[in-house]
Amino acid sequence: MKPQSRKQFLTTAVTLAAAPVAVWAASETKPASMQVIHHVFFWLKRPGNVEDRALLVEGLRTLRAIPQVKKLLIGGPASTVKRDVVDNSFDLSEMMFFDNAADQDAYQVHPIHAAFVEKYGHLMGRVVVYDMLVEE
Amino acid sequence: MKPQSRKQFLTTAVTLAAAPVAVWAASETKPASMQVIHHVFFWLKRPGNVEDRALLVEGLRTLRAIPQVKKLLIGGPASTVKRDVVDNSFDLSEMMFFDNAADQDAYQVHPIHAAFVEKYGHLMGRVVVYDMLVEE
Repeated sequence: MKPQSRKQFLTTAVTLAAAPVAVWAASETKPASMQVIHHVFFWLKRPGNVEDRALLVEGLRTLRAIPQVKKLLIGGPASTVKRDVVDNSFDLSEMMFFDNAADQDAYQVHPIHAAFVEKYGHLMGRVVVYDMLVEE
Repeated sequence: MKPQSRKQFLTTAVTLAAAPVAVWAASETKPASMQVIHHVFFWLKRPGNVEDRALLVEGLRTLRAIPQVKKLLIGGPASTVKRDVVDNSFDLSEMMFFDNAADQDAYQVHPIHAAFVEKYGHLMGRVVVYDMLVEE
């Protein structure tokens, strides 16, 4: 293999290997479908309490009025087959769709979100949040 | 308050209080928008390893061929503001949309899923799964 073609081969190989990750880790070009999903799991302070869950659902619905929130899905554990890796112990889950991380950050400090935490925060025990940058 | 109107008041109050939960906890009528979201978080055995992450993305893409999978989103941690409740330590995340829990169960035992686990399972360290029944 000539030095020139070896270099070309290596460059191509590195580009191919890095491509799937580079798209959403380092690319400056934002794909049309790119979005940020904010997924929150709530364990009630009084686990399984029907009234508390209804109240928290009521509170979560108010968050739809925040302009940065493109979409909000509210739900509970699904009755899928039990497996060791599945955590179905949470009481409620909210999933929000944002255009980007900055919009999620703006949502966190929005007055409607602050009012939600103030009014419904006492219902919450453990809270776990995952923010996911989705490319595809 | 007359006994009659008091009873009516109580019935109405109970119905209103229970409504938000009853819809997806006890209703036999399935709303048009009801779906099951299967959200999986992967921590690589070699955390942050770019090649391993690219390989796992490659494997996850094969799962789109499984008929029950309506939609599959693949991504990584978003660069949102750090907060105590946010877990951004995972390497990869897949989010799948199913019509119902039975479809998710069928997906788990589909040969393409079995082949994925066989070929790419060695890359995975910790795996956490949440299955969420979404009503709204």
